[in-house]
Amino acid sequence: MNKQPIGLLDSGVGGLTVVKEAMRQLPHEQLIFIGDQARLPYGPRPVAQVQQFTWELTQFLLQKHIKMLVFACNTATAEALQVIKPKLDIPVIGVILPGSRAAIKATKTGRIGVIGTEGTIKSGAYARTIQRKNKHIKVVSVAAPKFVPLVESNEYESTVAKKVVAETLRPFKKHQVDTLVMGCTHYPLLRPIIQNVMGDNVTLIDSGAETVSEVSTLLDYFEIANDDQNYHPKHEFYTTGSGQMFDEIANDWLELTDIHAQEVDLKKALQLT
Amino acid sequence: MNKQPIGLLDSGVGGLTVVKEAMRQLPHEQLIFIGDQARLPYGPRPVAQVQQFTWELTQFLLQKHIKMLVFACNTATAEALQVIKPKLDIPVIGVILPGSRAAIKATKTGRIGVIGTEGTIKSGAYARTIQRKNKHIKVVSVAAPKFVPLVESNEYESTVAKKVVAETLRPFKKHQVDTLVMGCTHYPLLRPIIQNVMGDNVTLIDSGAETVSEVSTLLDYFEIANDDQNYHPKHEFYTTGSGQMFDEIANDWLELTDIHAQEVDLKKALQLT
Repeated sequence: MNKQPIGLLDSGVGGLTVVKEAMRQLPHEQLIFIGDQARLPYGPRPVAQVQQFTWELTQFLLQKHIKMLVFACNTATAEALQVIKPKLDIPVIGVILPGSRAAIKATKTGRIGVIGTEGTIKSGAYARTIQRKNKHIKVVSVAAPKFVPLVESNEYESTVAKKVVAETLRPFKKHQVDTLVMGCTHYPLLRPIIQNVMGDNVTLIDSGAETVSEVSTLLDYFEIANDDQNYHPKHEFYTTGSGQMFDEIANDWLELTDIHAQEVDLKKALQLT
Repeated sequence: MNKQPIGLLDSGVGGLTVVKEAMRQLPHEQLIFIGDQARLPYGPRPVAQVQQFTWELTQFLLQKHIKMLVFACNTATAEALQVIKPKLDIPVIGVILPGSRAAIKATKTGRIGVIGTEGTIKSGAYARTIQRKNKHIKVVSVAAPKFVPLVESNEYESTVAKKVVAETLRPFKKHQVDTLVMGCTHYPLLRPIIQNVMGDNVTLIDSGAETVSEVSTLLDYFEIANDDQNYHPKHEFYTTGSGQMFDEIANDWLELTDIHAQEVDLKKALQLT
């Protein structure tokens, strides 16, 4: 039994889809989330800078005495996880391995599609991870640069969204994948449209949801889950950007009304340690 | 990169459904399986004896320099995992937590059914594990003592099987579960019949398959997966009972032709260390 919180970080609000899934699967665990809106997006930044920013978010969360750390961000996972993980005494996990594993488990034809931001697709992290585990699997990767803006502008149910999704996913027509990894934590918001375009026979993999399963596995394995059924955790949300904007998006997306993010000046917060 | 094998133990051949799933999800990993046919079934035995037998199987597998140990048996998991895990330097996992976690993830109505041997159902391990994680979930547990004999006598596709399964699962009619945990490693052989009786809207959870996902998670987490794509592992199978009988069942069930189990005298094998 361990009531310490679980820390989650993201470059923005996309990681809240992981938070939502964690609230559902792990209702007794307190969550502390920080989004680095002030310096979003991470995708086009140099690797060293992504590592530095992620390290700062990590330090901030460590001050909150977290028992586990989740990189709820594909870019941070691809570029900073392997550098930061060995430095910490607590378990640290990212979103790419859980998503890859779930896709390998789901596919029957051995043909997996991956969609992600341009940065994630260019890094080749999903294809590399999947094929390292099974080289016979064919991975078709397609960048979906227009998806995040659609979601961030709250247009993820619009007819524009339907058109953009259909156009973006067209390359998959000829490859006949039976499994599609949503390799960005923003994409689950577009899930109904993506499923409609891909067809019911294609299994959609929500990397964020799979990551929460992995969190659950490690909590149990290390015996640090909070099993107090009467504990109603009060989650904490932080942003380096505008708290008001964060709250609007977060409450709308997560169908919650009580998220009030605190604005954080990272430099100041980290000097206080 | 680590080419050491993964060890799996069971009271009998049921754990081979876990082996089959491991071969599929983790094609580069060498597996070493031991079934304790000579002392089957474990279910009705005193706890101390199950712990002793499981410890002997564990010792046998440790001689093979395994890098991880899987209790592919519900009884061993329920009664011996917590005692043996702290004694070993390698990761050890069972089947109950992965199955419980998957069920919690899958249910939408919060009503989960569990079927298992009389021993497993009597131990209450699944209901306890699920409700420790989320006390609002209703768990309906039903013992299915006739399923293992059906499978072991190779009748798992017969009309008798259909009748027995329909009768056994009748109590679920009035409880309207949307998820059913197959809490015995033998049951996936009856999956088509069980699905047919429960209806397409009920999600069946294969604890063994979920356990392999957890194996995969821990291999990655501890960085001990074998990522050599050109490695074609030669699996090893051992039984304390009749090798010939083991081979017949194993090759039939797993749709393989090349399983040749070696007969093991545990007492002799363990004195040699």
